[in-house]
Amino acid sequence: MKEIDLSVGAGGLSFQHFYHKVILKYLSNEHLIQANDAAIVTMDSTEVVMATDSYVINPLFFPGGDIGKLAFCGTVNDLAMMGARPKYLSLAFILEEGFEVEKLKVIVKSISTLSKALGIPVVTGDTKVVEKGKADGLFINTSGIGSPIKRLPQQINVGDKIIISGTLGDHAIAIMAARENLAFQVPLLSDCAPLNLITEPLLKKYDGIKFMRDVTRGGLASVLNEIVSGQNFGIRIDETCLPIKSQVKSACELFGLDVLGLANEGKFIIIASNDVANQLLSEMHEHLHSKDACIIGEVVTSYPAKVGLITKLGPERIIAWPVSDPLPRIC
Amino acid sequence: MKEIDLSVGAGGLSFQHFYHKVILKYLSNEHLIQANDAAIVTMDSTEVVMATDSYVINPLFFPGGDIGKLAFCGTVNDLAMMGARPKYLSLAFILEEGFEVEKLKVIVKSISTLSKALGIPVVTGDTKVVEKGKADGLFINTSGIGSPIKRLPQQINVGDKIIISGTLGDHAIAIMAARENLAFQVPLLSDCAPLNLITEPLLKKYDGIKFMRDVTRGGLASVLNEIVSGQNFGIRIDETCLPIKSQVKSACELFGLDVLGLANEGKFIIIASNDVANQLLSEMHEHLHSKDACIIGEVVTSYPAKVGLITKLGPERIIAWPVSDPLPRIC
Repeated sequence: MKEIDLSVGAGGLSFQHFYHKVILKYLSNEHLIQANDAAIVTMDSTEVVMATDSYVINPLFFPGGDIGKLAFCGTVNDLAMMGARPKYLSLAFILEEGFEVEKLKVIVKSISTLSKALGIPVVTGDTKVVEKGKADGLFINTSGIGSPIKRLPQQINVGDKIIISGTLGDHAIAIMAARENLAFQVPLLSDCAPLNLITEPLLKKYDGIKFMRDVTRGGLASVLNEIVSGQNFGIRIDETCLPIKSQVKSACELFGLDVLGLANEGKFIIIASNDVANQLLSEMHEHLHSKDACIIGEVVTSYPAKVGLITKLGPERIIAWPVSDPLPRIC
Repeated sequence: MKEIDLSVGAGGLSFQHFYHKVILKYLSNEHLIQANDAAIVTMDSTEVVMATDSYVINPLFFPGGDIGKLAFCGTVNDLAMMGARPKYLSLAFILEEGFEVEKLKVIVKSISTLSKALGIPVVTGDTKVVEKGKADGLFINTSGIGSPIKRLPQQINVGDKIIISGTLGDHAIAIMAARENLAFQVPLLSDCAPLNLITEPLLKKYDGIKFMRDVTRGGLASVLNEIVSGQNFGIRIDETCLPIKSQVKSACELFGLDVLGLANEGKFIIIASNDVANQLLSEMHEHLHSKDACIIGEVVTSYPAKVGLITKLGPERIIAWPVSDPLPRIC
């Protein structure tokens, strides 16, 4: 089997071959091997956290990852941000007729590598195929369930600190560079990464964590506006504190992009009470994917329901919701 | 907002409008209103059944339903067939730029109607938009979790009966008719329906239910071959017992289709021990969506790992796995 044809989506013998040679070959476990339409799994508690995301990124392969890694990390991170330990994932493909099976194997291998490393099995899945021209190569949906470690969000108070886990915009600019064949002197990789290994020990150790959210589509501007929306508090961010890689800075200047609206796929913010913020930071610095964590602002009364930015040059401005997408199909 | 544009997929202000006017308007609940990236839900037991399916059906609207109803029922049915009570669903859209918002509202309303009727809320979701020409209108993924009522499959034995819940091929032929503008004298509707209301009381009442599976892509031929694959028993079906509507019979004759390979979206088979088969049938006849249930065959030793068919004209033949798809994008 070299290319996906429509028969793979037909639920017959072609699918059986595909399932064994592409899916089970890399992802086999006690659940998938049963080839049922659903999986029976065991949870630690009666509360279950559930997340879903579809991934339509273009290109499918990019510096620092591929759509498989992205789809795995994205849903793992959505669960982690809700204060949960990700436990099981589902995996659904929508394939365009003619898609190369070799490419798909590379993508499934990416998923398999993460699945094994994190101990989060893919327990159920689905494969659909549409005619040539009716999709763009491959779309993936991953859904996931997890066990809550701690109930989030908790009450956010004035004076709470805003921590960002690392540099902004890496994923968006890496994807843009891949699309436009831009070559940086120092290559820029997507920051696509699973964040649960950072969040889990922090949640267990610190009660002062109020809220966590990964900074994806819409960037920091969207995340912060979502938090303050309808609230009687605001958030003030200090521009000089924002960690930004030099390649991202240059690309933003060159293309007129606002780094606050750019997506990451391996960064998150924490809102934490002032008394634990510095301890959190120290622990985050020990972890590869949050070694550049820093405090970028705090919860204030001065901008109710708004996000304010202290700019480098002094005057403050309000950070608006991003309206259009600077870079569509980034995830 | 009349048409979906790329900004809806950007995670900014356009998405906020879309989310309130299209999603929350019809599907609002305590989970969705929080607009988190995941939902925290409560389960009855520590075992959780998990299912996922993507839906790429063409056309999106068809006699008897639409992609919304299909996506809701499909995942509900996958959970029901595993012996579970469906509890919560996720809903993820991949939209093509330019898709009419009015159409999407009709589809979300279909989902809303079923969600309310069945008491199964959509608790989390996702919306992606791709450029015009990069998808075919709308693809949906629904994933679901449920609480097990009874652990299935159980041991299948020789002599167990095969029950089908109703007529075969209705969905496939209704879709084909919609695509080809065929007009039957008596209109044929898709059988798309939720099956959990049938399966739940049966599971609670009867221990003799060994296995259930909805008859979707690949038809009865696929389902039965999956069951016997690698087993030391076979299944023998009696052709004269297969319930088939006259419109489906005519269409199969006219287009040279094998009804055994055609998809339903509201039919399922039960494998049950002989001693409860007739009681099961009587109860199934009380329910609208299984009023034509009948016994179509049994588990035998004569065809190990094969499915045999006693034909109307006498000679027996082996029912093979369907190889190609008679009707692609049926679900």
